[in-house]
Amino acid sequence: MTLTRREVLGAVGIAAGSCALSSCAMQEKGSFRDGIAKPAYPWKYAKLDPEKTAQRAYAECPKGHCMYGVFASVMTQLAEENGEPYRSFPVDMMRYGAGGVAGWGSLCGAVNGSAALVGLFVDDEDEIKKLVDELFLWYQQTELPQYVPQKAGLDIKMPKTVSNSVLCHVSVTRWCKVTGYKPLSKQRKERCRRLTADAAKKTVEILNAHFSSGSVVVLQHDEKTKQCMSCHVKSSETQPREILTEKTNGKMSCSSCHSSLSDGHV
Amino acid sequence: MTLTRREVLGAVGIAAGSCALSSCAMQEKGSFRDGIAKPAYPWKYAKLDPEKTAQRAYAECPKGHCMYGVFASVMTQLAEENGEPYRSFPVDMMRYGAGGVAGWGSLCGAVNGSAALVGLFVDDEDEIKKLVDELFLWYQQTELPQYVPQKAGLDIKMPKTVSNSVLCHVSVTRWCKVTGYKPLSKQRKERCRRLTADAAKKTVEILNAHFSSGSVVVLQHDEKTKQCMSCHVKSSETQPREILTEKTNGKMSCSSCHSSLSDGHV
Repeated sequence: MTLTRREVLGAVGIAAGSCALSSCAMQEKGSFRDGIAKPAYPWKYAKLDPEKTAQRAYAECPKGHCMYGVFASVMTQLAEENGEPYRSFPVDMMRYGAGGVAGWGSLCGAVNGSAALVGLFVDDEDEIKKLVDELFLWYQQTELPQYVPQKAGLDIKMPKTVSNSVLCHVSVTRWCKVTGYKPLSKQRKERCRRLTADAAKKTVEILNAHFSSGSVVVLQHDEKTKQCMSCHVKSSETQPREILTEKTNGKMSCSSCHSSLSDGHV
Repeated sequence: MTLTRREVLGAVGIAAGSCALSSCAMQEKGSFRDGIAKPAYPWKYAKLDPEKTAQRAYAECPKGHCMYGVFASVMTQLAEENGEPYRSFPVDMMRYGAGGVAGWGSLCGAVNGSAALVGLFVDDEDEIKKLVDELFLWYQQTELPQYVPQKAGLDIKMPKTVSNSVLCHVSVTRWCKVTGYKPLSKQRKERCRRLTADAAKKTVEILNAHFSSGSVVVLQHDEKTKQCMSCHVKSSETQPREILTEKTNGKMSCSSCHSSLSDGHV
């Protein structure tokens, strides 16, 4: 049988329409084009098992490194359960975040991937900030890596360190200084692979909490950083010392770069 | 007329198949699911006009900030020209990168968005590194912002500064120190909006060059950083001073954080 153009487009509409009614989070929004309904934003999150997500991230990491490992751990599970639109997300793009973005040592790729997931599933910008705050504070303050694989890529007793920074360069250097392993060693790569599993697990714990109880705020800045912020951030604009104090932006732990106070401090 | 299930699925196949032959970069890969063909990775890039992209990024920026502005400037143009899969990319997720990721001041959102685009359109990891190197070195070494909007959101004579860093906190603080404007001022916001336009333009220039001539490598690290790297990075492992030198990871300009040399230096 030969279908007319109208019949083909009609059938595509039916297929896409049935999808919109299923659990796959595809929704008709605006006009159809190329026979596909644009998925509604934010994409729907479905509760995932943190431990399984850690295992998945550990397995995925060698295919595309840290950012990819975290992002793919969630997206592949949702794709297996729900199909589209998760299945069509170009997860491979997330390889760009490796080693603090293409080896630059800037933001740790694992938490860049975590934050990207938060941005995909959460619409409200204040909520995104709350969730990323919790994630980044956890990363800065926790002895990592904690994940112990059932079948390790490299079977070693893994030393843990607290990074006091979300930056790849600082996090890796700190671990290398404590352990004596080099940044390009197989031990350091195994460390980041396990840390990728930790970050994926934490991301899912935070998203699970957000979408069930809405409450994820547990951690606070360390005392040193709080002290800096009491004068140097926006909220202090009404303080008496405001005129003497340079205001700044950001929430990273101050002491990881500013190891001593400048002369102006009293 | 009533279509059978087989006829519907057949029609979806035809529609998706015709799309695979068009310029929309949709390709049949693996099995169909939910009636949609998974877009092949890497997604196809089509040459864009750098100046128009800067204008688009400046216009998009207020809707979702820096990372969103850069990413959306490219994706919306490709969607208008080619439809899927560009149209269905959840560009809103990129709001997570604002202010160095949710206000943390880590990696500048504009270049996080640029690097994400590189990751989407370029498959080879060595090529991704080359392109991101060029992009990040440009960001570190160039007086920014350069973009002058035809109709400015805030009409001021805009001071330019060299950031010497890809980190939002450092880049913003340097500009604020030179200009006297505060990090949360409308002038600083206008600065980042114009810088978003600059980063989008540079991204497109680099991608255009990569996909036409394949040659984008122009910039090098500054002399100070080169000197640090001559002992501290991987390539120096065969150097005589290797035993005395701590190896490190990353490519960020060293001097923006390490303002003085430690005692071990001779």
